[in-house]
Amino acid sequence: MKRSERVVCLVNYFLNSPYERIQLSYFTNQYSASKSSISEDLDIVNDMFIYEGIGELKRVSGASGGVIYQPVFSKENNEAFIQSLCEKLADPARILPGGYLYMSDLLGDPEIVKKIGRAFVSVFSGIKIDAVVTVETKGIPLAYAVASYLNVPVVIIRRDPKVTEGSSVSINYVSGSSRRIQTMVLSKRNLKENLNVCIIDDFMKAGGTITGMVDLLKEFKAKVVAIGVLAEAEDEEDERVIKSYTSLINVKNVDAELKEITVNQGSIYQTS
Amino acid sequence: MKRSERVVCLVNYFLNSPYERIQLSYFTNQYSASKSSISEDLDIVNDMFIYEGIGELKRVSGASGGVIYQPVFSKENNEAFIQSLCEKLADPARILPGGYLYMSDLLGDPEIVKKIGRAFVSVFSGIKIDAVVTVETKGIPLAYAVASYLNVPVVIIRRDPKVTEGSSVSINYVSGSSRRIQTMVLSKRNLKENLNVCIIDDFMKAGGTITGMVDLLKEFKAKVVAIGVLAEAEDEEDERVIKSYTSLINVKNVDAELKEITVNQGSIYQTS
Repeated sequence: MKRSERVVCLVNYFLNSPYERIQLSYFTNQYSASKSSISEDLDIVNDMFIYEGIGELKRVSGASGGVIYQPVFSKENNEAFIQSLCEKLADPARILPGGYLYMSDLLGDPEIVKKIGRAFVSVFSGIKIDAVVTVETKGIPLAYAVASYLNVPVVIIRRDPKVTEGSSVSINYVSGSSRRIQTMVLSKRNLKENLNVCIIDDFMKAGGTITGMVDLLKEFKAKVVAIGVLAEAEDEEDERVIKSYTSLINVKNVDAELKEITVNQGSIYQTS
Repeated sequence: MKRSERVVCLVNYFLNSPYERIQLSYFTNQYSASKSSISEDLDIVNDMFIYEGIGELKRVSGASGGVIYQPVFSKENNEAFIQSLCEKLADPARILPGGYLYMSDLLGDPEIVKKIGRAFVSVFSGIKIDAVVTVETKGIPLAYAVASYLNVPVVIIRRDPKVTEGSSVSINYVSGSSRRIQTMVLSKRNLKENLNVCIIDDFMKAGGTITGMVDLLKEFKAKVVAIGVLAEAEDEEDERVIKSYTSLINVKNVDAELKEITVNQGSIYQTS
């Protein structure tokens, strides 16, 4: 197999297996190539991944040796994408009663969802994450996008217990927006104890839903090591209860009557 | 840029942009290469995509010319994957009351979800599909996996109207499993009229839920051109109302008392 041919296979392999440690011997066997050839192939792939801003290959030294693709996307690419999202969201036609924004068209676009996942994993790089947790329904595609790049499972908290999930733990919490007592349920089989988890959701106002998730996760002895929300908006009445989180977008001054709205980049690249 | 370097960029481009027609001039400009060089690069990428069983590059001739990546995965890869799923699902510990199977762990694995998407797109290739439709909640990740390979949007039917979706159309239907009247809702903004849609869901017994979806989609003048379900199971009491569909897995003889279960490959590669 020629170098350019091996490179096709290598790129396909890495893009489909982020954060997976692979021994060089796997590739030397697979493509009947010498270790030095594969090593040069990997240098080329790494250089071009950096050039394209899609992450890099980390070489692990030692007896077993190996290589890991870390999908950390460039700040420039992520910020350009967030900027384009902000412009789309700033359309006053998106304003719905209650200061909500219509976002289903954007969340329904797999390309956009993938790029939202890229932005989060880029800043979560270096944090040990065992699972991505979300609450049904709108955060689900975002959670899968993040989990797909982190190569970890997704765990979905439900609003009601399901017959298809077996025994479960549930909690009640007060939703900031509706001020009603609501329920969250997580099947016992769905999450092992003592894991490092990352919470992903689509929208955060006061943060009541995320606080509820954090409380429910305590029942599973999970450690919440990162929180990512696509859009945050200020709540007129409540101070935010969640202080440490990553948002891609900050929605301000939604005025349903004047049809005005301000959308800016969120906390993602803010240094605190 | 050398050939092996260009090839890295090309593979990354195609894998992220399935079913998107790209003019050769885009690549000649992007990589400052001649048309004949790019053309040879594309031949190499195409040969290796076929070798890896991950689809192929289709050249479009004519004045504008171009190339499209069709992600049709090999029957061998898809069947090997379905076989491994069957083995996992045949574990009697998965049997839940009512003849349901615990599948959340598998549906929570982004790698498995991606491969489920691959199997469906491989057999839907050649069908013109404008959008993938599912009903919340379990089918959502599968719908995104399919949509991501088809490069079309996902539309999610809800169980209740949401404040964040605006005005909607709803229908009532009888669920086969619970025999209760249930509701399905689709926001008017979520689906344009007269589109070709593909329905994706996780589980089908008599098919009541899918019939409900087909009825609701009629209100949007949508044409259902394909139906894909991860797992089908026979219903003891009802004959199946949906006749034409693609299933990856067929679940039979679930006996909660004897802890017995039979899981086979579904209709996907059956010739009728």
